[in-house]
Amino acid sequence: MPELRQNPITKQWVIIATERAKRPQDLAKKAADIKPVPSYVEQCPFCPGNERLTPPESLRIGDAAGKWQVRVVANRFAALSSDGERVRKHEGLHNTVNGVGIHNVIIETPDHSKSIALLSHAEVELIVQCYRDSYIAALHDPRVENVTLFKNHGLAAGTSLEHPHSQLIATPIIPPDIRYRMEEALRYYDWSGECIFCKVLSDEIAERIRLVEETEHFASFIPFAALTPFSLWIYPKRHMASFGEIHPEEMRDLAGMLRLVLAKLYYGLANPDYNYIVRSAPSEGRYLRYYHWYLTVIPRLTRTAGFELGSGMYINPTIPEANAEFLRSVALPSEAFASA
Amino acid sequence: MPELRQNPITKQWVIIATERAKRPQDLAKKAADIKPVPSYVEQCPFCPGNERLTPPESLRIGDAAGKWQVRVVANRFAALSSDGERVRKHEGLHNTVNGVGIHNVIIETPDHSKSIALLSHAEVELIVQCYRDSYIAALHDPRVENVTLFKNHGLAAGTSLEHPHSQLIATPIIPPDIRYRMEEALRYYDWSGECIFCKVLSDEIAERIRLVEETEHFASFIPFAALTPFSLWIYPKRHMASFGEIHPEEMRDLAGMLRLVLAKLYYGLANPDYNYIVRSAPSEGRYLRYYHWYLTVIPRLTRTAGFELGSGMYINPTIPEANAEFLRSVALPSEAFASA
Repeated sequence: MPELRQNPITKQWVIIATERAKRPQDLAKKAADIKPVPSYVEQCPFCPGNERLTPPESLRIGDAAGKWQVRVVANRFAALSSDGERVRKHEGLHNTVNGVGIHNVIIETPDHSKSIALLSHAEVELIVQCYRDSYIAALHDPRVENVTLFKNHGLAAGTSLEHPHSQLIATPIIPPDIRYRMEEALRYYDWSGECIFCKVLSDEIAERIRLVEETEHFASFIPFAALTPFSLWIYPKRHMASFGEIHPEEMRDLAGMLRLVLAKLYYGLANPDYNYIVRSAPSEGRYLRYYHWYLTVIPRLTRTAGFELGSGMYINPTIPEANAEFLRSVALPSEAFASA
Repeated sequence: MPELRQNPITKQWVIIATERAKRPQDLAKKAADIKPVPSYVEQCPFCPGNERLTPPESLRIGDAAGKWQVRVVANRFAALSSDGERVRKHEGLHNTVNGVGIHNVIIETPDHSKSIALLSHAEVELIVQCYRDSYIAALHDPRVENVTLFKNHGLAAGTSLEHPHSQLIATPIIPPDIRYRMEEALRYYDWSGECIFCKVLSDEIAERIRLVEETEHFASFIPFAALTPFSLWIYPKRHMASFGEIHPEEMRDLAGMLRLVLAKLYYGLANPDYNYIVRSAPSEGRYLRYYHWYLTVIPRLTRTAGFELGSGMYINPTIPEANAEFLRSVALPSEAFASA
């Protein structure tokens, strides 16, 4: 018998379709679909030597020799314009805002072939630092109401550029999906006096069956009502509504956790396409007691079809507890993950 | 300058990304990707002669010679089970329901190659009749709270079976996406005394710039805040909250409109993959004055990436008004669409 589970935070429902259940191996990429990626591609706008092909840098971290390790630049095909004031218009039922905001690209490494699963802990820490700094800079723009920080890895995740990069889009409005999450979290807080995210986290750490890994400052786990196979949450243990509040030692810890989780996917499911997103309170809500930022990783192993588009429900043909167990069991190369 | 537009019904925001604007031709399938489809495939479980490969029929429409024209059967890999009572459980934060419900397949035609764009008006009318009859039958199941009727056409739309078919999934819960839409619609009704869907429809018919086609009982148009290129709405002109309330002459008219719209996509964009969904009030709300059923067609021409998953916002690299103009201009084969 299938089971419907409800996400206690978003109230979204998923059908855990036991009759269609797939094994992790069935979801892994076929060996024939895995193509070797070169370290350097002459025409790649993000490879070293082609810096003139990107708009100017807003941030750069370099090494002792003066070479860049992470760069932040404006997106050459920006979805929003960085110039001008925010103007809202109402005509009849039509509500519009002109498209002002920020659309940046974080180029994660000079090496064309190195996704986070293959970088060192220290290298990933530099990426997280750039995330934090770009995030805070965006919050300080008075036109900005909400910041989405995300990564698209692979074709199925919607990327067209192979060189490892993330993006930041800062919009002049707060979208309703975020408002609804906040309302649900507030309702729980009003009833219990507790942040629902903190409660979910402490339950998962106590129960352990959906836990993937726990570190000093973070825990990663498969949500009880995971909408899609192997979607995964990384929660900070300290209550913080906004990603911008992260401390240096937490950044270092997050870098290790993110790298470990992505390596588990890389080695366990043969480098699947995935998105990840930093979900954080809007800028006006950075000190809320009832909201909590986290990072969600969504491997793109299945396709959304008419049922998902029509109902907002999902059909997950895997079991969250079995997926967590599988990820815990994935062995990582010992030289790169000595402490893991 | 890009423009952010808000859907007045769902409150969702889309970035109309003028800087990335694509022409309709850029989104059409390449000729090399279009493969001829045979009328009959020996191993296809939905082709005539293989009826034993599907679960028993719950509905069949036959012709004078006794051959079936449309069949409704249970899904062999059903996401929900038709047996048992509905049982809800609460354990801590975990809310679950056992997976009871209905998962049917509507096999639209005996001809493996004939999608709706290629069928006759009379043939499509039989499909719409089966939709209505299956829909009403599902509403009468006391375990069912919400019914989603949808079609997946093509790989990008999530289908694995090529033979033209639709699906009906009836769930024992109402998902939050539907609740939120209803709440927003109620809020508008409380303020204006008017159904917001009726208002959007009358505005679009008066303005005409996003209109694709108008018939006696229906109008089709590109929404002002279309989330993706060429997504399109077909609205009944008469106020009805539930699809189950459709009259016979409206079914005939809807069949003509659906066929025409899908033919415009077929000939204008080279048979794109698409989903369509009948969005209707949940069974308990079938006579609501503030809710209105409609059919939404979503061509799958772009991919959702981290920004969409993280914010619920979309980036549409096309202009709704230009897309409507393009669809109005698409010429259809005159022998099949004499009156269009």
